[in-house]
Amino acid sequence: MRTEIASIGEFGLIDRLTDKIELQNSSSKLGVGDDAAVLKFEEDKEVLVTTDLLMEGVHFDLTYVPLKHLGYKSAVVNFSDIYAMNGTPRQITVSLAISKRFSIEDMDELYSGIRLACQQYGVDIIGGDTTSSLTGLAISITCIGDAAKDKIVYRNGAKDTDLICVSGDLGAAYMGLQLLEREKVVLQGEKDIQPDFTGKEYLLERQLKPEARKDIIEKLAEANIVPTSMMDVSDGLSSELMHICKQSHTGCRVYEEQIPIDYQTAVTAEEFNMNLTTCAMNGGEDYELLFTVPLADHEKVANMEGVKLIGHITKPELGCLLVTRDGQEFELKAQGWNPLQEK
Amino acid sequence: MRTEIASIGEFGLIDRLTDKIELQNSSSKLGVGDDAAVLKFEEDKEVLVTTDLLMEGVHFDLTYVPLKHLGYKSAVVNFSDIYAMNGTPRQITVSLAISKRFSIEDMDELYSGIRLACQQYGVDIIGGDTTSSLTGLAISITCIGDAAKDKIVYRNGAKDTDLICVSGDLGAAYMGLQLLEREKVVLQGEKDIQPDFTGKEYLLERQLKPEARKDIIEKLAEANIVPTSMMDVSDGLSSELMHICKQSHTGCRVYEEQIPIDYQTAVTAEEFNMNLTTCAMNGGEDYELLFTVPLADHEKVANMEGVKLIGHITKPELGCLLVTRDGQEFELKAQGWNPLQEK
Repeated sequence: MRTEIASIGEFGLIDRLTDKIELQNSSSKLGVGDDAAVLKFEEDKEVLVTTDLLMEGVHFDLTYVPLKHLGYKSAVVNFSDIYAMNGTPRQITVSLAISKRFSIEDMDELYSGIRLACQQYGVDIIGGDTTSSLTGLAISITCIGDAAKDKIVYRNGAKDTDLICVSGDLGAAYMGLQLLEREKVVLQGEKDIQPDFTGKEYLLERQLKPEARKDIIEKLAEANIVPTSMMDVSDGLSSELMHICKQSHTGCRVYEEQIPIDYQTAVTAEEFNMNLTTCAMNGGEDYELLFTVPLADHEKVANMEGVKLIGHITKPELGCLLVTRDGQEFELKAQGWNPLQEK
Repeated sequence: MRTEIASIGEFGLIDRLTDKIELQNSSSKLGVGDDAAVLKFEEDKEVLVTTDLLMEGVHFDLTYVPLKHLGYKSAVVNFSDIYAMNGTPRQITVSLAISKRFSIEDMDELYSGIRLACQQYGVDIIGGDTTSSLTGLAISITCIGDAAKDKIVYRNGAKDTDLICVSGDLGAAYMGLQLLEREKVVLQGEKDIQPDFTGKEYLLERQLKPEARKDIIEKLAEANIVPTSMMDVSDGLSSELMHICKQSHTGCRVYEEQIPIDYQTAVTAEEFNMNLTTCAMNGGEDYELLFTVPLADHEKVANMEGVKLIGHITKPELGCLLVTRDGQEFELKAQGWNPLQEK
């Protein structure tokens, strides 16, 4: 079933996509339908704003990314940035530019993923823009969140001797991408063959349907921990560690043997003949939380499920180092995903 | 001079473009540089959010739109949406997707226009995203503003007998676009000929460098007028009147002879053999303010410079009508700019 978007136009499409959206947050006063949305935050809250622009062919490849997953991921990566400030995402605006290739049903799929993510994380869709594009699909999402002033965590608060922690495991999203890219090449032109990803489900899920670590933020709050610095791992651990150290004017030392890696990631890196540590350090798109806590919190974080201690913050003159299993030290390099960098 | 963006990468470009940005608003606590920006609004203020996504080839044509003007306009059209809520724009996020065709110097130009607009209107750039695009330029701006709760003006508050007012004049931006499109066709292939736009400067300015009506919002406040409904004229007067009437459950009657039209617009419509009223009613991109006030405010608005009374709100069963000079009545049609509509 394919219905042309032109048959209902911009306003018709917006009405259809935003039909029956109910605002869940008390800070959402008015959503879609006027020149601007209206929000009102509690007196003791500061407001957090983050935004992402995703372009077809650069950030996603629709030959293997289902539109519903794309919608889900587009929303979740923004939530992740709000959690990375130790805040709670509350609202998003969703702007779409759509080429003629896409039908109303395609947009229903995309939007159902966005709405599912919003439902899971308790976020309201409050506005956006829907327009046409000469080629491909563009998705721009802005997320607004809130946090108490004294709970907001920045990148610049890490201190010498702080412990460096990371949630979940790293490198799986990157290995998932490698798998999908390989199958795309292998299956080029073949329409009816379904690739067999048995045993690799976790990697695909990490790439196609990542989650933001709301649970970790909640655990930290329960344990009365306010990290000294935090950010989410979107470009790769190396790159993010360097951001924290640069902005905090510190160095760091992380230990290769402590980097959390899933079994499927390890097996697949082996299959692809790739260096596993490099995948985990530079893979990107993990959307895990990287944060630092004072030494005094050691016991609390050491016992926290889903959190791993990977190293510690040092004085700036010691540099940013990875200590390998055999005790060698290598300077970290930001090889993270950088679409504008010379390859 | 042309320097490839790849030579400095995403972070280098962001550093360059956001260099020396100083936050002017007390509500801007933290701008560019962390996972999210941090804002804190005064206790009695509600927060307004609007967003626009502009795509090359759909919303702008770089064969005749200078990048600096494009930047200025991209920001101003968002400010206009905040003023249309009777609010004050405070912050924007700026996301850009850039193809290889563009150089660092191009982005400097674009950004200088955005920064100029922010300076003129007292708005802070607090974040964004910069990435690559396979084809063309995409600009996504989200604007955040504030307003006291009892001063916010929605589209749905118009009441029977209210007066309908519009600021400035209408149709000029559309005629400016016609001129530019004509010259583009005439000059196709000719590189060194500069088209002569003498006597049409106002039309070009309205198209290439529109302003948001901050001044009108200030005048309304000085005169102690809170409109019953308001929106900005971006898709054309007819379309906007129908939005207000639909959302307010009213009808309206506007008078052709009252529609404010500049002399250059009239002369050029004649030249192009176009119906002047149609241009003014459906042209779009005027970014004037359309608002309604109670009859009791008649004297105040009648004497307000830059504001014209064009009709009045009626009961819904009377429909939305344009009364022509010779007394005939025509139902309004939304022929406004609609990129997804069937042509």
